Amino acid sequence: MTASESYRGKRVLITGGLGFIGSNIAHQLVPMGARVTIVDSLAPLYGGNFANVEEIRSDITICSGDYRDPSLMTSLLRETDVLFHMAAQVSYIDSAKIPLDDLDINCKGTLQMLEICRQHNPDVRVVFASSRLVLGKVLTQPVREDHPAEPLSLYGVHKLACEEYLRFYARTYGLKTVVLRITNPYGERQQLKHSKYTLPGWFMRLTMEGKPITIFGDGSQLRDYVYGTDIAEAFVSVGATQVPSGEIFNCGFGRSVPFREMVETIVEVLGRGEVKYMPWPADYERSETGDVNFDVSKIRRTTGWFPAISLKEGVKKMYDFFSSRLDRYI
Amino acid sequence: MTASESYRGKRVLITGGLGFIGSNIAHQLVPMGARVTIVDSLAPLYGGNFANVEEIRSDITICSGDYRDPSLMTSLLRETDVLFHMAAQVSYIDSAKIPLDDLDINCKGTLQMLEICRQHNPDVRVVFASSRLVLGKVLTQPVREDHPAEPLSLYGVHKLACEEYLRFYARTYGLKTVVLRITNPYGERQQLKHSKYTLPGWFMRLTMEGKPITIFGDGSQLRDYVYGTDIAEAFVSVGATQVPSGEIFNCGFGRSVPFREMVETIVEVLGRGEVKYMPWPADYERSETGDVNFDVSKIRRTTGWFPAISLKEGVKKMYDFFSSRLDRYI
Repeated sequence: MTASESYRGKRVLITGGLGFIGSNIAHQLVPMGARVTIVDSLAPLYGGNFANVEEIRSDITICSGDYRDPSLMTSLLRETDVLFHMAAQVSYIDSAKIPLDDLDINCKGTLQMLEICRQHNPDVRVVFASSRLVLGKVLTQPVREDHPAEPLSLYGVHKLACEEYLRFYARTYGLKTVVLRITNPYGERQQLKHSKYTLPGWFMRLTMEGKPITIFGDGSQLRDYVYGTDIAEAFVSVGATQVPSGEIFNCGFGRSVPFREMVETIVEVLGRGEVKYMPWPADYERSETGDVNFDVSKIRRTTGWFPAISLKEGVKKMYDFFSSRLDRYI
Repeated sequence: MTASESYRGKRVLITGGLGFIGSNIAHQLVPMGARVTIVDSLAPLYGGNFANVEEIRSDITICSGDYRDPSLMTSLLRETDVLFHMAAQVSYIDSAKIPLDDLDINCKGTLQMLEICRQHNPDVRVVFASSRLVLGKVLTQPVREDHPAEPLSLYGVHKLACEEYLRFYARTYGLKTVVLRITNPYGERQQLKHSKYTLPGWFMRLTMEGKPITIFGDGSQLRDYVYGTDIAEAFVSVGATQVPSGEIFNCGFGRSVPFREMVETIVEVLGRGEVKYMPWPADYERSETGDVNFDVSKIRRTTGWFPAISLKEGVKKMYDFFSSRLDRYI
């Protein structure tokens, strides 16, 4: 059975489903015949945006609410076959400014939701969006799933705790949980409101608005840019596959490029753009993980998924997307 | 300067200071001339007990309050040179039953307290009581501080998150933090109310009450039993030493014995006792870490501390202690 067939009639819940990756998942699931429900708090600084689902709005159910509301989530989770848990405080930079909020949104909400699953729907399949930032400084290359995890940010600490929650609930109660560690996501439907989430979109916005891009250092650090629709496909694949409970998968492009090359690609595709260089600010430098080369062979071996969209192709697609609707995203 | 001299006139705050290890720390610090303040919520299932400090009650300040109260902690921490953070939900078994409370008591309280330190007293030295249970299944022997951490309990997940908080605040803000990972603590002033904390005391209580001790499996699993006053000395040493911020130290006896031998030692010292064997209950077996042999050379190299009290000597001391006051601890 293909992923497409396995979702026919399935009840899918996406927390943070009005955001970047969550809405891309919804767009893929609707044509597969899944019954998609989204819960999203539309918190102002995050990626939730009704523009992300306008083409499928009549095909899905949207709950404007906070996934930390236990009674809302209990009623939704009772009627769910597959849960994609994307809702989060998404900025590692902000996590140092609002540590207790980061804990509450990212850890407490996730733990509470797993408890609800255990008590009310232990057969639900749970797919969790984690981040490469659980790892901290890169010590060995290529980065496999068993790389030591010593996060450099509170965001990373809390995502790591969530990963451990998912493993605990899998091992202890047999819950069907799986973790995808996203590398450097970018693409259509990503938020462009500020620079604290992911930079390709932010830099594209600056360029479209005629403003210069600023690079810290010489931009030589290697990054693994993976396109949003590719990520969404990875989630859809994992949600449809019998993977061992509690497993962790890298979800990236599997080939890194210098940060500078990402910027140059934007300038090349848009045919314009100004780039400035400045020294690393100390607080950014402390969180710098070093070069990364992610090994994404485990998820391919297990689900058959592999990323298809190169950086240049991705930047083109993202530009096509935002060219006609930048105003809805800023 | 010896540890003893370095505490003269120092303002020391001990969270959970009416409990097992916290009160033993207080007993050591008072004769050194430290000005000791204790904050303890006396939560019913934990180890807080006024009997633990009766000999020094007039020499210390006791705040009956919850360390999660930010205004209480802000006023106390402004006036603190060394903070020993011992307050916690202490049962790994209960952490599965009250996951959100475990998160709130162990993680949120710690994170909030570090924020208060950062904002109001960044020079305070913070010593944190962690646990061998952050590690999970033992993969390599002897267990050093860099052993992989994959906790088998939510208690372990949250203690691990706290360790990461301390490293983050050390690295990012220069806070002087240090972590001690306690192996299997036992000894005078430990709580004896239930079997969910540490077993030597519980087994001693059962024997003193003429009740049988039950062992799961054959009792061959190796454990590192470290006596409470030795642990307290380790905390006092670390609190007096210029150790690199964010460091983690194993705090154990450094030599393991079979679980069965601990039971036999109690029976031998008390001159009585009945032992029964039964199969492992499934929920305990899932959390079983396997044999442990802890390497405690790092803390010795750094501070000079090493444990002095053998299992047999410790059981004798504990029996002497509880013989005259069992009623105050049950």
